[in-house]
This record gives sequence, C-alpha cells and structure tokens, in this order.
Amino acid sequence: MAWIDLNCDLGESFGAYTIGGDKEVIKHVTSANVACGCHAGDPLVMEHTVRLAKEHNVSVGAHPGLPDLVGFGRREMKISPEEAKAYVKYQVGALSAFCVAQGLRLCHVKPHGALYNMAGRDYALARAIAEGIYEVDPGLVFLALSGSQMVRAAGDVGLACASEVFADRAYNADGSLVARGTPGAMIHDADVCVKRIIRMVQEHKVTAITGEDIQLAPQSICVHGDTAEAVEFVRNIRQSLEQEGIELENLSRLQK
Amino acid sequence: MAWIDLNCDLGESFGAYTIGGDKEVIKHVTSANVACGCHAGDPLVMEHTVRLAKEHNVSVGAHPGLPDLVGFGRREMKISPEEAKAYVKYQVGALSAFCVAQGLRLCHVKPHGALYNMAGRDYALARAIAEGIYEVDPGLVFLALSGSQMVRAAGDVGLACASEVFADRAYNADGSLVARGTPGAMIHDADVCVKRIIRMVQEHKVTAITGEDIQLAPQSICVHGDTAEAVEFVRNIRQSLEQEGIELENLSRLQK
Amino acid sequence: MAWIDLNCDLGESFGAYTIGGDKEVIKHVTSANVACGCHAGDPLVMEHTVRLAKEHNVSVGAHPGLPDLVGFGRREMKISPEEAKAYVKYQVGALSAFCVAQGLRLCHVKPHGALYNMAGRDYALARAIAEGIYEVDPGLVFLALSGSQMVRAAGDVGLACASEVFADRAYNADGSLVARGTPGAMIHDADVCVKRIIRMVQEHKVTAITGEDIQLAPQSICVHGDTAEAVEFVRNIRQSLEQEGIELENLSRLQK
Amino acid sequence: MAWIDLNCDLGESFGAYTIGGDKEVIKHVTSANVACGCHAGDPLVMEHTVRLAKEHNVSVGAHPGLPDLVGFGRREMKISPEEAKAYVKYQVGALSAFCVAQGLRLCHVKPHGALYNMAGRDYALARAIAEGIYEVDPGLVFLALSGSQMVRAAGDVGLACASEVFADRAYNADGSLVARGTPGAMIHDADVCVKRIIRMVQEHKVTAITGEDIQLAPQSICVHGDTAEAVEFVRNIRQSLEQEGIELENLSRLQK
Repeated sequence: MAWIDLNCDLGESFGAYTIGGDKEVIKHVTSANVACGCHAGDPLVMEHTVRLAKEHNVSVGAHPGLPDLVGFGRREMKISPEEAKAYVKYQVGALSAFCVAQGLRLCHVKPHGALYNMAGRDYALARAIAEGIYEVDPGLVFLALSGSQMVRAAGDVGLACASEVFADRAYNADGSLVARGTPGAMIHDADVCVKRIIRMVQEHKVTAITGEDIQLAPQSICVHGDTAEAVEFVRNIRQSLEQEGIELENLSRLQK
Repeated sequence: MAWIDLNCDLGESFGAYTIGGDKEVIKHVTSANVACGCHAGDPLVMEHTVRLAKEHNVSVGAHPGLPDLVGFGRREMKISPEEAKAYVKYQVGALSAFCVAQGLRLCHVKPHGALYNMAGRDYALARAIAEGIYEVDPGLVFLALSGSQMVRAAGDVGLACASEVFADRAYNADGSLVARGTPGAMIHDADVCVKRIIRMVQEHKVTAITGEDIQLAPQSICVHGDTAEAVEFVRNIRQSLEQEGIELENLSRLQK
Repeated sequence: MAWIDLNCDLGESFGAYTIGGDKEVIKHVTSANVACGCHAGDPLVMEHTVRLAKEHNVSVGAHPGLPDLVGFGRREMKISPEEAKAYVKYQVGALSAFCVAQGLRLCHVKPHGALYNMAGRDYALARAIAEGIYEVDPGLVFLALSGSQMVRAAGDVGLACASEVFADRAYNADGSLVARGTPGAMIHDADVCVKRIIRMVQEHKVTAITGEDIQLAPQSICVHGDTAEAVEFVRNIRQSLEQEGIELENLSRLQK
Repeated sequence: MAWIDLNCDLGESFGAYTIGGDKEVIKHVTSANVACGCHAGDPLVMEHTVRLAKEHNVSVGAHPGLPDLVGFGRREMKISPEEAKAYVKYQVGALSAFCVAQGLRLCHVKPHGALYNMAGRDYALARAIAEGIYEVDPGLVFLALSGSQMVRAAGDVGLACASEVFADRAYNADGSLVARGTPGAMIHDADVCVKRIIRMVQEHKVTAITGEDIQLAPQSICVHGDTAEAVEFVRNIRQSLEQEGIELENLSRLQK
C-alpha cells in the first residue's frame, strides 16, 4: 500500500525570539526536522520541541544548518567537506541527547537551507554529510532532495535515504527543482499542488515545467508551518492523501 | 592499590585561534576534558581532540561551559537550572557524537569555569547539571570539586562521581578552596604541591590554610597544559605519583 | 511648562526573527532605544530602525546590552567595569554610524536589561558606562533609572542625564523599584498608572508601596510596544499627558 | 618625492585567544587595519589596539569582515550588497568610537579576507561597501586591491582610494593577483620581493608571471605580523625602502 511522510521544519525559535506555528502544524505532520542551535534553535527550544514531537507521536529528525544565525542558514558559505562533516556530527549529536533523554530514537537527518541546496548539487559536500551521519548512527535516514547528489551520496555511504518532493514547486525535465524566481517556479493553486502530490505518490510521476512527465519516487513531502495558510495547506494535503487511501507514516520504517 | 586520575582541559582552540599545548600535555594525563563549542572549541577542534585522545589512550570527558565565547566561560551568568540542564545535554550530546564516530565511549562530564564554580556552591544548579548528565547517559561520571554541591547532587541523582582536587590551591578548614586573590591561595612551590597531592591520595588528608588536617578522598587531580611550565609540572607530578606506587588510571573504572 | 519624553525599546528583531510592534508604537513615542547587535538587533535591523525613527521624527538612542543574544541581555553576567565601558563604546559607535549616514545625531544612551539593572545598583559599573558614553560623545544624554547609581555616575562624569520612571511599577520608600515578583510590584490598572505618571510629571511625587509620598523628577517614561495592549496603553498615556497640557518632547533638549 | 604606506592587520585577538605579534610589527608599519568584532577582535581588543596604534603613531583603519568568527572571515558567504553595506557601517562605526575616545580620527577602511576577495571581483558588492564607508564619513580612504572593482567603486562613489600591492604575490598580465595554489603564485625570495616592491613604488611597474611589465601605482603595501619571520620581513622592506629614499607615510594624506 502506498505511504508517504509529511516533514516540516520545527524548533526554529531562539531565546526570546519565536518563529513558526509549531504547536499547530505538528498536529498534521509525521516528521519534525528540528533545528540544532547553529542556524536556529537553542538548547531549551530543542528540549521543548523534542517533547512536543513526542506528545504528538511525530518522529524526530535533526535539521543541521550552517553556523549563520543572523542569516538563518540561508546564505551559501564556502565550507570544506571536512567542516560540513564536523558540523553535521556536532548538531546530530546535540539533538540526539534530547531524544535519548526522552526515550526517543532520532530517526532522520535533513540538512537545512543553504547547506541543503549546496549539498544537493555538490557530491563532495553531500558525501561528507552522509559520512558524518553514518559515523554517528548508521541506522539514521538521510532525508534528501529527490534526484540530488545527496541521494547518490547516501547510497554510496550505505545510508537509508528518503527522497523528498515539494508540493508547490515546479520541476525541470531532469528532475531538479526550477529555481525560485524563474517564472512558473512556484505553483500557487492549492488544488493543483494536491493533485501533483497524489500523482507523485501513486504513479511516481510529475509533469515537468517543459511539459513531459518525469519519474519521481518520493518517501516524504516537505511542508511548512510558518503561517496560518501554510498550516491549512498541510491539513488539506493530509486529508486528500488519506482520502486517496495513502497511508501517512513517518520515516522510521526506513531506519536500519 | 591507590590510584588517581590526572585530568586536563583540552580542545579549547577555536577556528583560527589556538590555545593550549594539547599535543604535549596529553602524553602525561589520563583524562581529557574536551570543550564543546560554547565557551571554547568548535566542531573541527572537537573532532581532532577526540582523535588525539584516542591516539594517546586518554579517556574523553565533556567540558560543558556557559555560552560566553568572548569570556571563555569564566564570567558568572545568572542562568536558571532548566537552562543549565539543557546546555549540559546539548554539549554532552555534541561531544558524544565525535566519540561514537571514533568508536569511543564518553567517560565523564566536568563543568567548565564559571559553571563549575557556580554549581560548586549552588545545589539547584548542580542538581540540574547532574540530571542533565544522567538523562543523556546514566553511566557517565560527574567529575566535580571535592566536597562541593556537585558531589552531593551526583549522589542524589544516582550518578557516579569523581572528586577532584587541586595540587596548587590552598584549602579552607571546611574543605573548600581558598578563593584566588586571598594571600596563600596559590601554592607556588612545586615540591610542596607534589607532597600535598601524594598525601591526599595516600592518606586522604591535606593541611588546611588554617593549619589543621582535613579529610579529602580524591579520584582525580586537575592539571593544566597551557604553558611549557605547566606541562613540566604535570610530568613531574605523574612521575612522583608513579614512584610512590600510585597507579595512574582514568575514570572509566567508575563508569556504570 | 511641564514636559516629558516617552521612550521605547525598538529594533530588537534579529535576522529572520521579528520582535516588537515597532511600526505601531513608534507613532506614539518621542524616543527610540535602538538595540545594537549584542543582545538583539543586527546591522540591517539597525539601518531600518534608524530610518523608521527618522520618518516619525523620533529621536534615536543607543540601547547597549550584554553580549548574550540567546538570553536577550536579560541575564546578569559578571563583567568588569573595563568590559562594560568597551561594550558601551562599541555599541554606541556602531549605532552612531547608522545615524550619521542618515543625517541624524545620536541623542541618548540607555543600557538594556541586565546591564541596566546591574548598573542601577553598582556605581563602578555605572561609572564605567558613563565614561564610555562621555568618551564617544560628551553631548549624549544618559537615560537612566531615576535615583539610581547611573544618575549619580552621569553627574560625576559630567554627562547630561534623563531620569526615567515606570508607569506600571511600584516604588519603595527610598525611590527604588519594588522588585518584580514582590506582591504589588506591578500596577495593573491602566487608569491608576496614568494618574501616577501625571502626578510624577506635574508634582514630582509618587506614593510608595509603603504609603508615603516620595520625590521623583522624571524626564522620561519607559513604555513598551511588544503587544497590541502595550501600544494601546502608550497611546492612552500620551493622550492623557497631552490633555493635561504636558508637552511630549524627546531628550535632545538635554543634549550638550 | 615617492612615498608608500605599509599596512598590516592588527587587533585580531579575541577574548582569551591571542593571535598576531601586534606589539612587534606595529614598530615597522604606518597603518593598522583593526578587526572590528565580526570575523575577529572584540571591544576590549579594539580598545587596546587603537591605544597601541596611537602610542606608535600608526594611523588606524577599520578592517570589517564577514560575520564568521569560527571561519575568521575567510570563507566566502553569499551576502547581498545591502547586507555588506550595513555590515561595513556597523563595523566602521564601532571602531570609530574607540578612535574618537582617544582623540584619533579613523583614517581608512580595508575589507577583510573573503569580503575583500569577493568585493575585488564583484562591482555591486564593492559599490555597496564604498557607499557604506562614504555614508559614515566621506573623508575616509578606501584601501583596496590595486586594479580591482573596489578601486572602481571608490572612484564612482567619490571616495579617496589607496591602491594596495603585495610584495610576495605574482601578478597576471591584467594586473590581478595570480591565484594562490597556482605554481609561481607566491614569491619566496625576500630579496626579489623587496626589489619588486621598490620598482612598483618608483617606476609603477612590475613584471607579470607571463613575463611582460605591467603598470601599477600603489599607495600601500600589505604586510603581515603573525610570525617572527613576517615581522623580520617587514623590517627589511621598510629599511630597503628608506635606503632608496622612499618616504614611509600613512594614508592620512589621502583623506578628504
């Protein structure tokens, strides 16, 4: 039977600063990507977010980012593979401690923002990240952009991988995402988004921006919880998927 | 047979900044307290320091500090017990990842600087730290100032504790350290230091600054590696201890 | 004719994190205390906040805080007077650059949070802050807690000082604020707050928590803009003051 | 009469971390590029470095860098021109405060590390930096890589510019530096370095790596003080320049 995971970034608040409607969106997702104190999050926020995930039976993943708090980890930085590997180990370890303390097992790792984008196209960086994850816990799942260098690196390193797709983004014919800013890159019609997602999950196909159908085999859909509309969109997607008989499941079934 | 551990702060470099003669002092100690990226250290430095410790068969402890890099964790901050607990979990988890990646088990936790000083006299803070350690791994050893609130908290929480003494510091009649700055607080004669340490280990006694003998049962001696003289002092202490037939051992024998 | 300044903390957002209803509250105040990138704020936020203040003809003050972003500068830290002085110079200088760039003159300096509280009772710290301000620009106004060590230090250093009072806080018989947490410390009735403020401005008197009248000669009232209720409260205070014929003015008249 | 400035990065220490032989190299240079607390330096270090420069009659410049302390500002980050401009204003303002406090006038601004490299080839970034400098003080001198986009931007903005050359680096035929790592990029023979520098200053010529002579009109030479050899090299260069009758002067003669 077809299944899919819904993942969302959570725990991005920092000190006195609050970001994201964590308490709302967590009701609708199956996996939480929890910030680890480098681009966002702090130890108390991590503690509270892991507890929140536990309460809602949502599985926990680490969401390591670049050490750029003021840039929210969204600005590309020229870091070496060795640095990327160490940053990932550090952040995965830190979050693991909060999971262990609550009797949970960390389930997956998804790089954040610019680190995700850079690793999607740079194999050396993706490989370093995969190795960092593997060295800390070879049973973790690498949650990665479908068709990217991260998927390739996970396979090469021997790490389970979950391919991630986006409901509201257009795809190029080669399976890559159409760059933001390009006309047509974002899909604004919620119904169209839902139909595309259902087709990706059921038929492993999506229509590229150039018109032809391309293959995709997703295990997870990336959703957002930063606005009331975003949360409503997640609720709709989930409902539509369930009506289609698609099971909503977290990524623990992929853990080794 | 009498035994004692020699512990030293290591891995305090940060980015382009180097501090400490890690590669020299590690030859002479049995335990390394490794900075965890908050008051000092960074992920790459942690990676290299854990590797260095492994090469020298020195056991690894986490050295969590206050989030005050520019103050090197030496300035007291009014943090809540909840914050202290979360900071400790975060840092212990982060360092654990580097240990696991190299097939090592993290052995102990010693709070750094102002966190150590505050927790030594504040039971609520000490207790929060002990609980944080316990929740991440109940088998870890709390390396703590002899006779302090940290020792009491470790016992209350069910954590193994190693009492730490200082070779070059004077003690008050109640077993506390004479505050730096007080006349006689520091003992500058290396031979006197060595004799005091040997007596502490063999007879569990030291002469207080007020003249009477007091009881102490140390499992570890705090040493430093930041100058060539400091390293030479460590070499001397170790040699003198061995000549007395005192075994040099790390804290893993206390792990649960 | 009686006059008073209304000051509010602004520019406390940081990177992707937004805090405070700056655009609303700025319509009602006369002075903005702008965060300087240490406990809150960042260079872009400072740029935008100074521009916003200029647009609303609100005078700009620096709001230097402790280097504790995750604690929002609210946790006391044991810093030396020399450190406090350097931190103040750094932050005042940084904000001045944004003022100069927009043809404004920086008007005042108000320490933030824990730095304000510590300097209120510690003369050495207050003096160091006053000296730091004076060395950067002797014409600046030190905006300080009425009756505190900061007022004394400003006088000793030769700095103009504006005494600040709080509408919603109770006072002790010695003129100090009743500590938060003490029963009766906060005054929740808005009408009572307004009446007290008007009396402070017109009669230089307020009734202490112990019942007797005490003397206060305020030049500024501290208000907040973090919630819609707070902004409404500011609007009310301003209206009430104007109805009493009290002029609302910023602190530039105190500048040397 | 021919003259030249010798500039060196100073004030790169941070908290407990010391970097650079500031007290030695300052005896031999005419200009100090002082770190401003983002990639290196902290308020106390800035205070001490400005005082040191004053004592040695060395003029002070701001050395703004990327907000990447752990990377020492050496890793390229994708920042927007608007961010670059705000970062420069912030750092120039902060350092200015320490100069003003000691009765000095800030003389120049030289971007650090990756910011320098990026702005050397990216006009939009160089322009934003030049505008940031100009807005804070139009009399400041932009110390910039000879022939780079920074020189062009300074001219367009109306800022005085000092062209900087390197004694130990090879040049391409177009006047750009041969990239580090390329064979022949670094010139290791100190005598050759000195001869090249003297020719650049006296004849405005240097031989490119491809053999032909190219034009350069330097006002400043970049030197280093991080090792004893580096300091010795600076001493030699200075002596040789003086023997040639070339005047050693700081950049204040270019100030508007």
